Amino acid sequence: MALLVQKSGGTSLADADGIRRCAARAVAAHLDGHQVVVVTSAMGRTTDDLLALAGRIASAPPRRELDLLLVTGEQVSAALMAMAIHELGVEAVSLPAHGLGLITDPEHCNARIHRIEVDRLRRQLNAARIVVATGFQGITGQGQVTTLGRGGSDTTAVAIAAALGVKQGTGVCEIYTDVDGVYTADPRHVPQARKLDRISYEEMVELAALGAGVLHSRAVMFGQRYQVPIHVRHSTHDEEGTMIVKETPEMERVCVVGCALTPDLGRITIRGVPNTPGVQSIIFKRIAEAGILVDDIIQIEAGITADLSFTVEAPNLADIKVAVQKALLIIGRGEMSIEVALAKVSAVGVGMRTHTNVAAAMFKALGDAGINIANITTSEIKISCIVPREQGRLALRVVHDAFELGRRPQESPRESPREEPALSPRLTEVKAL
Amino acid sequence: MALLVQKSGGTSLADADGIRRCAARAVAAHLDGHQVVVVTSAMGRTTDDLLALAGRIASAPPRRELDLLLVTGEQVSAALMAMAIHELGVEAVSLPAHGLGLITDPEHCNARIHRIEVDRLRRQLNAARIVVATGFQGITGQGQVTTLGRGGSDTTAVAIAAALGVKQGTGVCEIYTDVDGVYTADPRHVPQARKLDRISYEEMVELAALGAGVLHSRAVMFGQRYQVPIHVRHSTHDEEGTMIVKETPEMERVCVVGCALTPDLGRITIRGVPNTPGVQSIIFKRIAEAGILVDDIIQIEAGITADLSFTVEAPNLADIKVAVQKALLIIGRGEMSIEVALAKVSAVGVGMRTHTNVAAAMFKALGDAGINIANITTSEIKISCIVPREQGRLALRVVHDAFELGRRPQESPRESPREEPALSPRLTEVKAL
Repeated sequence: MALLVQKSGGTSLADADGIRRCAARAVAAHLDGHQVVVVTSAMGRTTDDLLALAGRIASAPPRRELDLLLVTGEQVSAALMAMAIHELGVEAVSLPAHGLGLITDPEHCNARIHRIEVDRLRRQLNAARIVVATGFQGITGQGQVTTLGRGGSDTTAVAIAAALGVKQGTGVCEIYTDVDGVYTADPRHVPQARKLDRISYEEMVELAALGAGVLHSRAVMFGQRYQVPIHVRHSTHDEEGTMIVKETPEMERVCVVGCALTPDLGRITIRGVPNTPGVQSIIFKRIAEAGILVDDIIQIEAGITADLSFTVEAPNLADIKVAVQKALLIIGRGEMSIEVALAKVSAVGVGMRTHTNVAAAMFKALGDAGINIANITTSEIKISCIVPREQGRLALRVVHDAFELGRRPQESPRESPREEPALSPRLTEVKAL
Repeated sequence: MALLVQKSGGTSLADADGIRRCAARAVAAHLDGHQVVVVTSAMGRTTDDLLALAGRIASAPPRRELDLLLVTGEQVSAALMAMAIHELGVEAVSLPAHGLGLITDPEHCNARIHRIEVDRLRRQLNAARIVVATGFQGITGQGQVTTLGRGGSDTTAVAIAAALGVKQGTGVCEIYTDVDGVYTADPRHVPQARKLDRISYEEMVELAALGAGVLHSRAVMFGQRYQVPIHVRHSTHDEEGTMIVKETPEMERVCVVGCALTPDLGRITIRGVPNTPGVQSIIFKRIAEAGILVDDIIQIEAGITADLSFTVEAPNLADIKVAVQKALLIIGRGEMSIEVALAKVSAVGVGMRTHTNVAAAMFKALGDAGINIANITTSEIKISCIVPREQGRLALRVVHDAFELGRRPQESPRESPREEPALSPRLTEVKAL
C-alpha cells in the first residue's frame, strides 16, 4: 500500500467530465489498495473570473477579502470531487481551509505554509476514505483564510505529501497537468525537445523558475526539502511522465539536462552608485516593496563607485522605473538606464558541477549562430545568457542542439567540448531576491 | 444611533452594480451614525447553478458536500460586498461561516440555529467597521459547515439582529427584496391588492407559509420570538415597505389582513385505517423520512376505523404515494386515493380571534362565485379552503373582495358579516408537520 497525493490542474477540472475523470483515477488507486489524497485547483478559468469580478467592484480590494473570494474556487471543485468519488461507491470527504488544518503565516494572497495538522487527514485515510483537499489555501493560527499565491495548489499537494511522510518507496505526489512531463526545452519552441524520464529537484527548480510552466518552483523546493518524489504527468494519458527525484551519481554524467527561454525581458543598469555597504539594500528594498521580482543581478565595481544591473519581465518595467528612481533619490547619486526587447536563454544541469567548459560550449553555439550575448549569469547548475529578444527562440534551439538534448542520455557524448569559457573579468553573482 | 441589519436577496446582488448599490446603502447608514451589519445572499442564480452542477456529477450527493458547495455562493457576494464598501472609504470585514460564529445543529442542508457568538461581531462594529455576514450558513460545534435550507439568509439576518439585541427603538432588521412590501394578496393575481404598512408576526408567518414569497416564515418566527422589528422593503426604491411587528390592539379591529393562494396541490385521502393510537405516527414518519411537507391534515373518525386526508404540493405527489404505500404495508389495512388539480385559498388575520363569522363570510363569497369547497381547515388566525385548481385565482379574488382588503383599514367596515359558519360535523385539526 502506498500513499498517493494526486493534484489536478484547473484545465483538467474545467467541467463535470473532467471532475469525474479525476474522481475515477482516485477511485482506481483506492481500489488498488492505496491511500489517496486528491488536491483540487479551481475549475477552468474560475480564479481569473473571480479576479475580474473583484476588479469591477474595487480598484484595490483588501487582500483579506480577495482571499475569501478566491478560496471559493477550490472549494467548489473539492466538494464536487468528493461527490463524484462518492457516486463511484467510495467514501470521500472534502477538507477546505478550516478542515484541512494547513496553517500559514498571515500574509494574505501570498501566504507561506507553517505546518499541516495531519491528524484529521490521517483519521480520514485510516477510515478508508479518499480525502479531497482544497489546494492554494490555508488558515492562519487565528483562523483567517489565506491563499498561497499563484501555483499554490502544486505547493499544497507537495506539502501534504511531505506532512504525511511520503518518501521514495512509500508513495508519490502526482501532478496531473496538460503536458506529458518535463521536456529538455519547451516543445512549442524546439520541436526536437525530448521528454525527460527523471530530473533532480535542483534542476527542476531552475527550469520552473525560468518559466518551464509545468510545476511551480516553490512546490519543487518543498519536495526537495522533504525528499518527496514528484511525478509530473498528463491528466488524460496513462503514460509515465517525469519523476522529480533526488540527484543520483548517474545524473551528473549528463552535463545539461534542459534549457529554457524567458522571452521578453528588460534590463535595468544603475551606474555610479557609491560602492559602500547598504547601497544595494536601499535599491532592492524599494523593488521588493513594489512587489517586483528581479533576476540576473550583476554588480561590477569601478573604484569608489559601482555599476549594478538586473533583469525584469517586460510588464514590470514601468513599476521598476519608479522604484529605482525612489531609491536613487535616497542614495543621492547614480544614474539608471533601461534596455528593452531582451530575452534570456538558460542551460540547466547538475552535471555542470563536474563537467568543465559547459559555459564555453554554450557561448560558442550562440556565437556561431551570430547571436550577441549582452549579459551572462551563472549559478552552480545553470548558465543564463541575455540575448536580443528577436533571437530568443533561435538561441534556445542552438543551445538545445549544442548539448544534444534531443538524444537520450546513454547516446550522448561523455566528453564535453574543449573551448575555454570567456567570462567577463569581475563578475559578482548576487543571490536572486 | 441604531443598529441596522440589512439583508439583500440574490436578485438585488445579481451583478457588480447590484453589489455596489447595496454597499452604498450600508455606507450611507454608517455615515448617518448607525452600526450596520449586511447579510448577503448568493448572487443571482448562483445557488441554482451550483445545484445543477452537483446534479451533473452525482445522483444523490452527500449533504455534507452539498453544504460545502453551496456556501461558496454567499461567500463570494460577502467578499465582494466588503470590497465595495471599502472602495467607498469605510472599513468593512466579511465574516463567512467560521468567522461569524453562527452555530447550528449538524443537520446538513437544513440546519437549525443554536446560537450566535456575537463577540466578534460586536468587536468589529465597535471598531467602526461594517460587518458583512454570509447568509444561509453556519457551522456546527465541531466546525462542520452547514446550511439553513432555502430562505436561510432571511433567517440569518433576523437571528443576527436578535443576537445583537435589536428591539423596537434600538434598531431594525431590513429585508431588501424585489417587491415593495407585503400585500393583502399577490398583486399578480389580484390587481386590487394593497401594500400593508404593518402586519403582525403571526399573520406574516401564516402568509409566508402560504407562499407569499416575500419572507421565509422561519425568519418571521425568529423575529417573533425575539421581538425583532422587520422591515420588508424594495431594494431600489426609497419608499417605506411593510413593518412586521408585535400585534397591537388596533390590529385586532381588522378581521382579515391578507389572503393567499397555493396554486397547485394534490390531496391524499387514506380510508379505513384502524382508529388506534400510533397509526398516524406510522404514516407521518414515512412521509417525514421522504422529506415531504404536507399540510391541511384532517382526520375523521368512523367507528373502529378513521379516514385521514392531507395536501401536498403537486411536485411531491409521486414521492408521497410511495411513502404512504410503505406505511399502509406496515399498518396492514387502509386504502389510499389521490385527487389532483386542487388549489388552496386562505384568509389570515389576528382579528379572527375576536371577530365571529369570518369563516361564514368566506364560504359565502366562494359559494356566490360558484366555487366548490373540497376541504376546510382552520387555525386561530387562518381559514383555508381547498378548491378546484382552475378556480384558484378566482377564489383568491373573491375572498380579497369579500373582506375589502383593497381598502385602507380605517375605511373598512367594523362590523363583520352575519351568516353562521357551516363547518363539517367532526373536523379535527392536526398540527402541521
